Amino acid sequence: MNKQQNILIIGAGLCGSLLALRLGQRGYNVTVMEKRPDLRKVAISAGRSINLAFSDRGNKAMKLVGLESKVNALCIPMNGRMIHDKEGNTFLSNYSGRDYEYINSISRGGLNALLLDEAEKHENVTIQFNRKCKSVDFEKTTALFYDYDSKSDFIEDTDVIIATDGAGSILRKSYYLEKKFLFSFSQDYLTHGYKELSILPADSGDYKTYKNALHIWPRGSFMLIALPNLDGSFTVTLFLSYDDGDYNFNNLTTPESVTEFFKKEFPDALNLMPNLIEDFFKNPTSPLGTVKCSPWHYKGNTLLMGDAAHAIVPFYGQGMNASFEDVVEFDNILEAHNKPSTKSDWENIFKSYESTRKKDTDAIADLAIDNFYEMKDHVNNHLFREKRNLEMALEKNFPEQYASKYSLVTFNENIGYREAMLKGRAQDKAILNMLAEGEIDLNSDLRLVLEKINSETQEILQEDNIAGLK
Amino acid sequence: MNKQQNILIIGAGLCGSLLALRLGQRGYNVTVMEKRPDLRKVAISAGRSINLAFSDRGNKAMKLVGLESKVNALCIPMNGRMIHDKEGNTFLSNYSGRDYEYINSISRGGLNALLLDEAEKHENVTIQFNRKCKSVDFEKTTALFYDYDSKSDFIEDTDVIIATDGAGSILRKSYYLEKKFLFSFSQDYLTHGYKELSILPADSGDYKTYKNALHIWPRGSFMLIALPNLDGSFTVTLFLSYDDGDYNFNNLTTPESVTEFFKKEFPDALNLMPNLIEDFFKNPTSPLGTVKCSPWHYKGNTLLMGDAAHAIVPFYGQGMNASFEDVVEFDNILEAHNKPSTKSDWENIFKSYESTRKKDTDAIADLAIDNFYEMKDHVNNHLFREKRNLEMALEKNFPEQYASKYSLVTFNENIGYREAMLKGRAQDKAILNMLAEGEIDLNSDLRLVLEKINSETQEILQEDNIAGLK
Repeated sequence: MNKQQNILIIGAGLCGSLLALRLGQRGYNVTVMEKRPDLRKVAISAGRSINLAFSDRGNKAMKLVGLESKVNALCIPMNGRMIHDKEGNTFLSNYSGRDYEYINSISRGGLNALLLDEAEKHENVTIQFNRKCKSVDFEKTTALFYDYDSKSDFIEDTDVIIATDGAGSILRKSYYLEKKFLFSFSQDYLTHGYKELSILPADSGDYKTYKNALHIWPRGSFMLIALPNLDGSFTVTLFLSYDDGDYNFNNLTTPESVTEFFKKEFPDALNLMPNLIEDFFKNPTSPLGTVKCSPWHYKGNTLLMGDAAHAIVPFYGQGMNASFEDVVEFDNILEAHNKPSTKSDWENIFKSYESTRKKDTDAIADLAIDNFYEMKDHVNNHLFREKRNLEMALEKNFPEQYASKYSLVTFNENIGYREAMLKGRAQDKAILNMLAEGEIDLNSDLRLVLEKINSETQEILQEDNIAGLK
Repeated sequence: MNKQQNILIIGAGLCGSLLALRLGQRGYNVTVMEKRPDLRKVAISAGRSINLAFSDRGNKAMKLVGLESKVNALCIPMNGRMIHDKEGNTFLSNYSGRDYEYINSISRGGLNALLLDEAEKHENVTIQFNRKCKSVDFEKTTALFYDYDSKSDFIEDTDVIIATDGAGSILRKSYYLEKKFLFSFSQDYLTHGYKELSILPADSGDYKTYKNALHIWPRGSFMLIALPNLDGSFTVTLFLSYDDGDYNFNNLTTPESVTEFFKKEFPDALNLMPNLIEDFFKNPTSPLGTVKCSPWHYKGNTLLMGDAAHAIVPFYGQGMNASFEDVVEFDNILEAHNKPSTKSDWENIFKSYESTRKKDTDAIADLAIDNFYEMKDHVNNHLFREKRNLEMALEKNFPEQYASKYSLVTFNENIGYREAMLKGRAQDKAILNMLAEGEIDLNSDLRLVLEKINSETQEILQEDNIAGLK
């Protein structure tokens, strides 16, 4: 008899479809309900597909489900940041001193379609589209859905519900509103919003600017970025304050002011964007928020995963990677427990998962905020650039012995985000202070510089430890 | 013509009644609506009055409204922490090395009654009780109330609404639920709850234990504290985990287990509490939460103040003091602006108030969490006790030149909480690390120790600054 083997997943986005695939591989009876239509059957207009940064933590999940090579075919490597100054000068700042470490631009839709295809290959996995979740009864482990096709409500009664329904999660909302237990919750908005724009392919079909980089136009209090798509276009995103500064989302209300703003701040980008005005006024302005909460689960009945549990701002390119890593971590916990056959087994699994995982998703949320300031501003800062140059040299010369904070977070999938954050921040502090005081520089003996950095980093960690009385 | 001079205050607790008094003194037309009955007319059962810590920031507000001496008469000075170990041994750890610095225990009810009396002396101030706020329309600046006396609803239409309705604020809830603007919000619960108990006066009417201290029974993962009342009793609070440990709120369900727990952990307290079991099972277990949010205001219409804007855990004894300081800060902003006559004037005042104040209320929220760990655990730690002894000596010998973090927060009302936090944390880190490495001790030349601490503190602040690229 199969007991407690029926799992309902709410949301067939990136996290939900990967989870369905993995639980399908493990033999569970999986039903997935998705409110949107099947994205494999709905035409996505050319050049408007949203792309994402895909890196080692995400790839670890693809290896787990056996999709590494199929996903690789969807990837465009980005070796570094291409910084554009106001005069249109550019310079490339690599993400790592190791040639084999880079991040990728990938289409959300393409990747999602692949995961859905693979999940549906399992006969124990069923995916239904146009089914919008209206509420979850986490005491009874049932969920109420509205079926857009039949235009009627229905209730799903199952053993376990996992909500991967994103930043606006219905399950999380019911945890908050029903007040049946103490639910810690935060939503934090930046004062900036974002708007998607595009650089279309040249008439030849070629990329209009360098393909293998993440382009950044950092301007201190705002910035523009661009990531390549497979079709020769770039998806461009403007990050700008709603209210502050001479130009902001609230006062950019005419074609003239938008053109004036781009001419002044991003003249080289403007040259590549004859479609700017159309994009600007057609596309929405969206907020940038961080969501944290706890507990993620209610008894052994329901669990939040992915953005539903921890939505983050996009500046570390880790949103999708973190959600994929959730599935890897959850799979590890499942592996470590006997196959659950009671509610209490599931409760132990959920508890164990949250206690292992939450410290890391909290850390990447904070790191992503850090990187907002780094990308829009610090990349222009003299000391910061010296630090990056030094770190590139160290990674190149001591590939086994040095990893920058960026590398620890992005390319070191075998350590958690929290460990990467603590070590990376201490290392940054050590380097910046030693550079500021002239104790190290790029012309010193690099072996000596590495030793100084390591010893100073250890001292910083130890002093923090003593101060925390741990 | 009086324009924009009608102010509705929701909630006549400590913050609301002080605000009403101050705005009354300034000549505004103030209406206060309070959901509870008038606490001056409802008997409060002996020994059950809740007391609070009152210190210099709160007193600054009392000076502002001319009530310093009247409030002083309600105060019981507490010069330090009286630490009780498991064997019933006690030692006193002073709050400051300066004799004139101490905190006070004060009755919430007594202080609230005084503020209500004083506010009502102004004919431009009206206070109505038994009026429960049901919702606020922050676009129209109206509020819907339920009148418990007439058992009917009514709407108040006013120029400005200030909600001082505590941690469960109705105005804050409407900001959150209506989603008319980006509202950052967090509620964070500790894994511990609290329960109020009591030590009744001796038959003679005397205090059963030392009167002029805040008593603490620190036990690492939980603690008991006691504050004196004017009637000879102490209000005792047990802080304990809901779930974890051998004894917790979820498993202390029988008189036997509660007695066993107290006999084992707090034997000297148990001897003073023949009423323990009655108190324990009569009184509720309450959660410990921190609330932060932003923005506090909506245009020039509505404003959150006090716990409604920033609820904190009680471990720094600063909850009431922070709310009183809100009124002082708001009064400063009012003073600095011309008397508001338009909505836009109020909007400027509210913006200016939040931008000055929020950094400080965020800081005291974080400091209060720090002190939870300090009180229940660190006060027993060897290094921590050495630090406190050294700080007492420094404050005694260099009263004008040294102030501990506790003193900066509690007795230095002329610097903000954030400044106190940054300096205090750096100072703690400097002392703990130098003590751990044997660079300073209580037997060294204190003048030299002070210099070392100051120089190390400055270095820590500077290094943090460089690492933050500020």
